[in-house]
Amino acid sequence: MMHSTPLLSSSKFASRQLRILTRTYSVNLTNNKFNNKMPHFMEPSTSPQYPYFETKRTISSAATKLKTKPKPTTKKNHNNFLPADQLTLAELNDNVLKAKYAVRGAIPMRAEELKIQLQEDPSSLPFDHIVNANIGNPQQLNQKPLSFYRQVLSLLQYPEILKQDESKLVASGLFKKDALERAKTLLHEIGGTVGAYSASQGVYGIRKTVANFITKRDNGEPAYPEDIFLTAGASAAVMYLLSILCKGPETGVLIPIPQYPLYTASLALNNSHALPYYLDEKSGWSTNPKEIEEVVLAAKDKKIRPSVLVVINPGNPTGAVLSEKSIEHIFEIAAKYGIVVIADEVYQENVFNEVKFHSMKKVLRNLQKKHPGVYDMVQLASLHSTSKGVSGECGQRGGYMELTGFTHEVRSVILKLASISLCPVVTGQALVDLMVSPPKKGDESFEQDQAERKHIKSELHTRAMQLYKNFNTLEGIECQKPQGAMYLFPRLDLPFKAVQKAQHLEMSPDEFYCKSLLEATGICTVPGSGFGQEPGTYHLRTTFLAPGTEWIEKWKIFHQDFYNTYRD
Amino acid sequence: MMHSTPLLSSSKFASRQLRILTRTYSVNLTNNKFNNKMPHFMEPSTSPQYPYFETKRTISSAATKLKTKPKPTTKKNHNNFLPADQLTLAELNDNVLKAKYAVRGAIPMRAEELKIQLQEDPSSLPFDHIVNANIGNPQQLNQKPLSFYRQVLSLLQYPEILKQDESKLVASGLFKKDALERAKTLLHEIGGTVGAYSASQGVYGIRKTVANFITKRDNGEPAYPEDIFLTAGASAAVMYLLSILCKGPETGVLIPIPQYPLYTASLALNNSHALPYYLDEKSGWSTNPKEIEEVVLAAKDKKIRPSVLVVINPGNPTGAVLSEKSIEHIFEIAAKYGIVVIADEVYQENVFNEVKFHSMKKVLRNLQKKHPGVYDMVQLASLHSTSKGVSGECGQRGGYMELTGFTHEVRSVILKLASISLCPVVTGQALVDLMVSPPKKGDESFEQDQAERKHIKSELHTRAMQLYKNFNTLEGIECQKPQGAMYLFPRLDLPFKAVQKAQHLEMSPDEFYCKSLLEATGICTVPGSGFGQEPGTYHLRTTFLAPGTEWIEKWKIFHQDFYNTYRD
Repeated sequence: MMHSTPLLSSSKFASRQLRILTRTYSVNLTNNKFNNKMPHFMEPSTSPQYPYFETKRTISSAATKLKTKPKPTTKKNHNNFLPADQLTLAELNDNVLKAKYAVRGAIPMRAEELKIQLQEDPSSLPFDHIVNANIGNPQQLNQKPLSFYRQVLSLLQYPEILKQDESKLVASGLFKKDALERAKTLLHEIGGTVGAYSASQGVYGIRKTVANFITKRDNGEPAYPEDIFLTAGASAAVMYLLSILCKGPETGVLIPIPQYPLYTASLALNNSHALPYYLDEKSGWSTNPKEIEEVVLAAKDKKIRPSVLVVINPGNPTGAVLSEKSIEHIFEIAAKYGIVVIADEVYQENVFNEVKFHSMKKVLRNLQKKHPGVYDMVQLASLHSTSKGVSGECGQRGGYMELTGFTHEVRSVILKLASISLCPVVTGQALVDLMVSPPKKGDESFEQDQAERKHIKSELHTRAMQLYKNFNTLEGIECQKPQGAMYLFPRLDLPFKAVQKAQHLEMSPDEFYCKSLLEATGICTVPGSGFGQEPGTYHLRTTFLAPGTEWIEKWKIFHQDFYNTYRD
Repeated sequence: MMHSTPLLSSSKFASRQLRILTRTYSVNLTNNKFNNKMPHFMEPSTSPQYPYFETKRTISSAATKLKTKPKPTTKKNHNNFLPADQLTLAELNDNVLKAKYAVRGAIPMRAEELKIQLQEDPSSLPFDHIVNANIGNPQQLNQKPLSFYRQVLSLLQYPEILKQDESKLVASGLFKKDALERAKTLLHEIGGTVGAYSASQGVYGIRKTVANFITKRDNGEPAYPEDIFLTAGASAAVMYLLSILCKGPETGVLIPIPQYPLYTASLALNNSHALPYYLDEKSGWSTNPKEIEEVVLAAKDKKIRPSVLVVINPGNPTGAVLSEKSIEHIFEIAAKYGIVVIADEVYQENVFNEVKFHSMKKVLRNLQKKHPGVYDMVQLASLHSTSKGVSGECGQRGGYMELTGFTHEVRSVILKLASISLCPVVTGQALVDLMVSPPKKGDESFEQDQAERKHIKSELHTRAMQLYKNFNTLEGIECQKPQGAMYLFPRLDLPFKAVQKAQHLEMSPDEFYCKSLLEATGICTVPGSGFGQEPGTYHLRTTFLAPGTEWIEKWKIFHQDFYNTYRD
């Protein structure tokens, strides 16, 4: 309809333009905060000459877009047609419009605005820097990359270095001997250059290394390179798995609540149902198999097919680690109802000493042995990533998934979809190889590598415990003891007056708390409403990646003030 | 239905398993060649111990999968339930099943099988290696990466090197001074490490460099970092743009025929209509605006909204370069009907001396000046990539898109979708910076860089012309003169007997030719049917990247034999 443009007067035309631009903002300012803030978020600084909007965008400045453009003519133009309008939201894919992603939502975007403000006028705010506790991005918060990784990756990018005299290279102190060796091996497996497309499933030699890692991790339960798909981080794997497994509204996907919002976003994109199962906060965010089965049956009653069950272990945002028993219960449901299990295990390295991580694959194999024939048809996709753990190489986009129990025909479809996007970045694939096969005892890099890993782990653990203890000293905060991952998800018992104030501001109460925290201290967190939570409860997610403790002290002071202000 | 399993006898249960596995193969062996071959394709070698299939997979070997598994019990098991089945194709997203991608289709997959066979028994085939002319993957065919790029990228991966004494580094001959400088600048812009997530739109400083490049390329027509989105190659941009712009069956997307199959694949994934407009082979694959407008009107009659028009310039697979006039005609249609233009300009560097590349953006800006008000609402997304040109860095997944004329609200949705997949690989973003801002006159790397670029360009040109001339000496082949890109798309006038033979083999005739070529010479090409072609015409796409001329000679001999065998 927009496309067969009726004849209009010049003024009408202009006013229609203004309407379009105004609508942009009215939409944004109401239900579309995300969109409204996004451009700032994306622009650490904005070029003043950009004619279409300024840093502080307003309707009037948006309208300048019109002024910067010649007034449209309505006289029959050179080729005797009237130009049609620009696209409106109504003309876009509704599923994309529905998708939400709080981790880079309104609060983090406000933080980016404040960053710009600090650059422009450092004294204009009660703090001098933003603490990005909203996203698990370790190296942004000064976690050092592991030296061995980076030595190898630099050699892969520039193999000329390998032509130098080896003893000289080692003498320079820049490269350890085993890094040089690994680079040569990887270059051979990759086919000589990281600049060529690899097979869509990933470099075979690297998939072999992954299979060996899994076999070792799972007490000898064999894994096979044929079952490994290298991916651009775990997010890519989740998005393309769900795009294959979701048929539309008839499909339901069980997701834990609270969850990592990538899952609800992907389900929105695929127009399928999220079937929430609630984690039990009181028992440290454990899973309740009875509830899961109830959700399955309720979905079937509604003629929704529960096709997939998502498990995040260690949990994001909860930091909880599943017991072997809980995993067995999940597989029992999967076997009984033929539900594909997606195991998001990207935090498998982030587990604190006292707890043990059990891989879903290992537990499945044990069940298959214990109960012949019962669990053979279970289909499992387990995901891992180079972005978390002690690697923290988020920007390198490395990851893998292991497929277990899928038919050849389904695997082939998964592979076909992978091949359409050609291949995951090859350096990211190499990084997966390094992550799953680090220097061994006796290798030149071993001592240093061990020391670096130990340091990162203990730092994370110390800070997690500090934050956890501090939270539980504070009025109206209750925090479960962290077992792993990179996050705490404390519960906020907010004063009634604060809840009222939030409603008045058309915000969820936890969003109001997070926004106030940000504006007062520069600490950027994500409200629980972005992850899902029991109705009537409020939480927030914070990483414990930010170095130092000074920010924790600032948080405590803010929190007391907040409660003093709003206490009933 | 599969999910509420009825009670069955043990034998029934087993036979059902066998049925599932057999179906896998019957499906594969008929309409699903792609799926059938895919696992081989993905496995340059296969581990003999893999229990689920062998290199030469057959129904019987598939059935061994059952044997390797314990017989399923039907006695009420430990928890008193009967296991459900694995997923079948019928339970997957139909759109994914529909998607096809010939560039990595049946012929390339057969080539991968032959590679394995050559590894196992080099003397078993009439050739000793595969010539991968099926995909534009320059470095796979020994094109050298540009030294300057790789020096900078290795420094970004391992900034420790920068701490060394600069004069020593330069003296080593490994790093040029300007490479060290660029690495420092990029590290600063990126925030110190390539291991942290960047903003989802990409690093602002790099987007600035891109904007400067475009401004210079387009004779001073200003471009802005706010309009630049860095992407993981151009494929990622195409896929996520179309996922936003396609609402479903009501949406139509005009694509050139022949086309790069990523477009039809993405449209299948989004369940939207491809509206083909045929390029005119006789006039060197030029576009015909009249025909495009007819397609637009025909779609509207069918109540399909023509939302997007795809232009590939320089053309893939045709290698044709659009004239300024043709581009103006396309924009006239876009302005008149409010159609978004996606300009796939990834081959903009691959243009032979005698022809000139005109960027869509530049032509649009000129039209906007010439005809005030008429073209202001035109929405253009132009894509570029680090995979092609003289860079040829396919495996590094770098690219960008520039958005022109979209409303803020639509841009925000595009940005939101980008943010769900966090960010494009940061080293790929850096590579974009290097591609659009290479060493300048006076920089230490300038001479060497120029020499390397010249060499690559002349190699490509020479080989393109050689191949082109040779084709036109052959019986039944007619090839348009290449103007750019990396491909030739010769037309095959196949003998009737060959067509008959193909039909007998349930293949398209051009697929039969390409398969025969592969089996006889090891030269891997893609049949025209994978790109689309005028009904009743046959073509193939070959790259001219493979070094040497010996393979061309082999091709000529094969071709003569083929025609001698099938000549009527």
